Amino acid sequence: MSKDNNTNSTDKDKANKPSSANHSTDNTPDSVTFALAQSHFLVGDIGANTDKMRKLALQARDQGADVIVFPELALLGYPPQDLLLRPSLSGRVKNALSALSDIEDIVMIVGYPHVDHHGTFNSAAILHNGHQKGFYHKQVLPNYGVFDERRYFDKGRNQVLFDYKGLTIGLLICEDLWEKAPISELKKQGADLIISLNASPFEIDKQDNRKAMLAKRSSEHQLPILYINAVGGQDDLVFDGGSMAVQADGTIAHEASRFMDQLLLARLEVDSAKFDTQQKAPLKLSRESEMYQALVVGLRDYVNHSGFTGVILGLSGGIDSALTLCIAVDALGADKVYAVMMPYEYTSKVSLEDAQAQARRLNVSYTVCPIFDAVEGIRHTLAPLFNKSPADTTEENIQARARGVILMALSNKFGHLVITTGNKSELAVGYSTLYGDMAGGFDVLKDVYKTQVYDLATYRNRLEDTPVIPERVITRPPSAELRPDQKDQDSLPDYDILDGILTLYIDEDRGYQEIIDKGFDSELVAKTIKMVDNSEYKRLQAPIGTKISHKAFGRERRYPLVNKWSIKG
Amino acid sequence: MSKDNNTNSTDKDKANKPSSANHSTDNTPDSVTFALAQSHFLVGDIGANTDKMRKLALQARDQGADVIVFPELALLGYPPQDLLLRPSLSGRVKNALSALSDIEDIVMIVGYPHVDHHGTFNSAAILHNGHQKGFYHKQVLPNYGVFDERRYFDKGRNQVLFDYKGLTIGLLICEDLWEKAPISELKKQGADLIISLNASPFEIDKQDNRKAMLAKRSSEHQLPILYINAVGGQDDLVFDGGSMAVQADGTIAHEASRFMDQLLLARLEVDSAKFDTQQKAPLKLSRESEMYQALVVGLRDYVNHSGFTGVILGLSGGIDSALTLCIAVDALGADKVYAVMMPYEYTSKVSLEDAQAQARRLNVSYTVCPIFDAVEGIRHTLAPLFNKSPADTTEENIQARARGVILMALSNKFGHLVITTGNKSELAVGYSTLYGDMAGGFDVLKDVYKTQVYDLATYRNRLEDTPVIPERVITRPPSAELRPDQKDQDSLPDYDILDGILTLYIDEDRGYQEIIDKGFDSELVAKTIKMVDNSEYKRLQAPIGTKISHKAFGRERRYPLVNKWSIKG
Repeated sequence: MSKDNNTNSTDKDKANKPSSANHSTDNTPDSVTFALAQSHFLVGDIGANTDKMRKLALQARDQGADVIVFPELALLGYPPQDLLLRPSLSGRVKNALSALSDIEDIVMIVGYPHVDHHGTFNSAAILHNGHQKGFYHKQVLPNYGVFDERRYFDKGRNQVLFDYKGLTIGLLICEDLWEKAPISELKKQGADLIISLNASPFEIDKQDNRKAMLAKRSSEHQLPILYINAVGGQDDLVFDGGSMAVQADGTIAHEASRFMDQLLLARLEVDSAKFDTQQKAPLKLSRESEMYQALVVGLRDYVNHSGFTGVILGLSGGIDSALTLCIAVDALGADKVYAVMMPYEYTSKVSLEDAQAQARRLNVSYTVCPIFDAVEGIRHTLAPLFNKSPADTTEENIQARARGVILMALSNKFGHLVITTGNKSELAVGYSTLYGDMAGGFDVLKDVYKTQVYDLATYRNRLEDTPVIPERVITRPPSAELRPDQKDQDSLPDYDILDGILTLYIDEDRGYQEIIDKGFDSELVAKTIKMVDNSEYKRLQAPIGTKISHKAFGRERRYPLVNKWSIKG
Repeated sequence: MSKDNNTNSTDKDKANKPSSANHSTDNTPDSVTFALAQSHFLVGDIGANTDKMRKLALQARDQGADVIVFPELALLGYPPQDLLLRPSLSGRVKNALSALSDIEDIVMIVGYPHVDHHGTFNSAAILHNGHQKGFYHKQVLPNYGVFDERRYFDKGRNQVLFDYKGLTIGLLICEDLWEKAPISELKKQGADLIISLNASPFEIDKQDNRKAMLAKRSSEHQLPILYINAVGGQDDLVFDGGSMAVQADGTIAHEASRFMDQLLLARLEVDSAKFDTQQKAPLKLSRESEMYQALVVGLRDYVNHSGFTGVILGLSGGIDSALTLCIAVDALGADKVYAVMMPYEYTSKVSLEDAQAQARRLNVSYTVCPIFDAVEGIRHTLAPLFNKSPADTTEENIQARARGVILMALSNKFGHLVITTGNKSELAVGYSTLYGDMAGGFDVLKDVYKTQVYDLATYRNRLEDTPVIPERVITRPPSAELRPDQKDQDSLPDYDILDGILTLYIDEDRGYQEIIDKGFDSELVAKTIKMVDNSEYKRLQAPIGTKISHKAFGRERRYPLVNKWSIKG
């Protein structure tokens, strides 16, 4: 209950009403058991999300939980984007909340969008035995990076606390906890425990950052914190779970698995305000492991929730498509992955061999479809207009686009989603063909730099005794094979240098001079920045792909197409 | 100067300093002449924008102006998007503002992004004789529709007024004036006149809405208002000018032209606080005329500022490409427009005749490029994989994609921008082929419903004695000509019904039940909404096009791809 008597408070007396007799007998009267429902709640699917909440609540109650907590906005899924502007939202949400009201003997804390005459809020409702005991509105609304919360939500103005079995519990939602004031105010108002509802998307090292923040906040105020995160893929975002129960001294008592559903139980002794501790904490994931899992989950959930029966991809014999194939198989199973090798006259024998070896090793459907006729037909159609002008990148793009047309035709005919294999380095500098290798619905490696592609390929190979990606694919110089003896490094700097510049320019938003000051060649920096800026139009039409970095292309990085910003100015 | 002594105020004494002797002699001491610099300021091009300001300031001074006002954020262009996050922004802006400091004897009010230790603000600087006399920070930051201002800007907290020649002038920026409080506060603090800097993008009927708002605000507070708007195209937005000087009684004393640069002068009598009145007000544009002009300006500025030497488009003989051709010629001149007719076996004789007639009439380069070889080559490549499966939309998409590949190849070879011809109705329901007819850099009719395409074609035909679009193109039933005797209405409802449903669902955000209540058939409404929702992935990869409606596809309408929102729920 709110200590400042605001209208958004829960009712203290009622919240105290349930006697301990109502609770599972394996709880001592001196402790409260919390269930963190780390689960995937689909955007828009209010009916299915409500059903899932009901199921999890009953399951948690059976396991002795007194309170179950769901992630931020779980009722509607996150991020719902402009669904929040639909006029029927308010009615749908009200119906869903009342549909949960028959669940007894467990307190449910439900993330949902709250619409009333004061505005629209990103809220948490406290439901108990058929009553809505109160609600909290998120106060700190992120509006940077991938977040547009101020487009939709009004700012909550009040702290909300509620009393339960002698505990005074304060609620926060996601960004609230990353700022100092909200938890500090809850402490002042007498909170014994903080519950934080989150929908926090994966980024490299994000879980470590969350832990550091939680350790700081809890120990600063000597407050235990329950941190519940969503899990699963939604378009370009992957929520990676890793929900936690954090002691008042900042140590972690419980940590849920990453990237998968889990109902995490944590019991708090009321007198000491201490959590019991986990028997066995989950393994800390290596950087490659968490990147790889994020890519698997992102693809899996996009394909399954879009209703595709499988995916189809072009296998070139190169490392990008090799890694993409592994991820697809790990995400969907080999029987749902269709690989097509589309050789043309510049395709090497090595590429053909390696593509076939990968497909065999992973046991996926593999077809060789030479594109000679398609390319010749297009060239023949163009011949009278090209009037014997010398070959240039136009002819290379025709090959790439012929492959795009073939894959899309197979997709149209057989219903599989075309996945693309372009990496972040290529997409950054425009080393790719619109409607060619960029044609498809999901770009698995969109946010993975080429150097990281190598790391992940090596990582994946180490998971099994027999490497799934032939060693030669990793060691040979990368080539698009669109002209004789072509190498990527004919057009681009070495990938370790290129990725160094790109990381500074894109992920860290550094300028020309700052990048040079880090030791990169000024001409190379200027050339690279120019390539990035000039490729904005390609990225605008690129498929989505899973965000794994601190700044991914797409909704997280919004640049004008017409843009005369000078590189060096 | 701010009356509440805040730190962001201009200095009253200094602002009063310039004696009337410094001013152009054709101003009586009892009046102040304002110049509204309605001009195009390119996003990112701080150098060129500063030069333009200098030129306009000197020109205005020569014409007797005491004060010149530039649009919102003119120094950087609008909307700058993530350029506002570049670390060198602050330094670049400071340099640009000081570069303007040598302009004497005219007060300059300059829209610019202000960066200091308090944050980043959307601001207006008052520059006079080498001194920055003060600055105002926008208080109401729009974060809806196409606007993301809270992603970048902090909220200004103070009113700013400055005294000049006996007038107390209050500053506002764009959205500030659409709310009640800011002008009301300025009035309380003693303002005699309001200057409002804007970058207000075009929408149908927007100028009428602006006039209604200005009439209300001015007459409510008995305050004259100077409203300066930007002009020109920036990606998907067109700023349509129409700057105004509004009397305290709400009547319009001066109105600038729409869609073009103009230096509008307005003289205010200090004693009466009345503007002189315009000799001849600009013609009020018809709805079709303003739509058409917006489309012309949007395309013209995108092409010219992207550095393309011309545009190339597929001419099908249908009405969409016919209208697109007219707009392209009006935007760029006939010598920069390349039309290609790409017949296949379902292309009718009528289409060939009409395409040729349009091209001849408009005097553009016209090529016929039959795609038979390209399609056959692709089909031959696919034959072993398709294994004699019956023809379906796959084969139709192959034709569309063959055309896309041909146009892109011509673009790659000769350097012209491919413009596409899809309309809003098609894009809404997904009646178009990704990488086929959707392949290109700019979709001229992206925000124009099919019924509006007919209106605009008729409008354009009326502008000249000989219609540029053959009557038959307007009267024959629309067809994609991708199979024998195909008509759009085989797959879609009549366009007047379809557009009625789409306008309610998309532009007005109405739900299923509300649309039925307007008299549309429930099954048709359900089918249409489903088509719209299922085409989100296509729109994600669509080229940009000029926004003319209240809600355009693209940054203005942000929907998840994976989205289980039920239509009827």
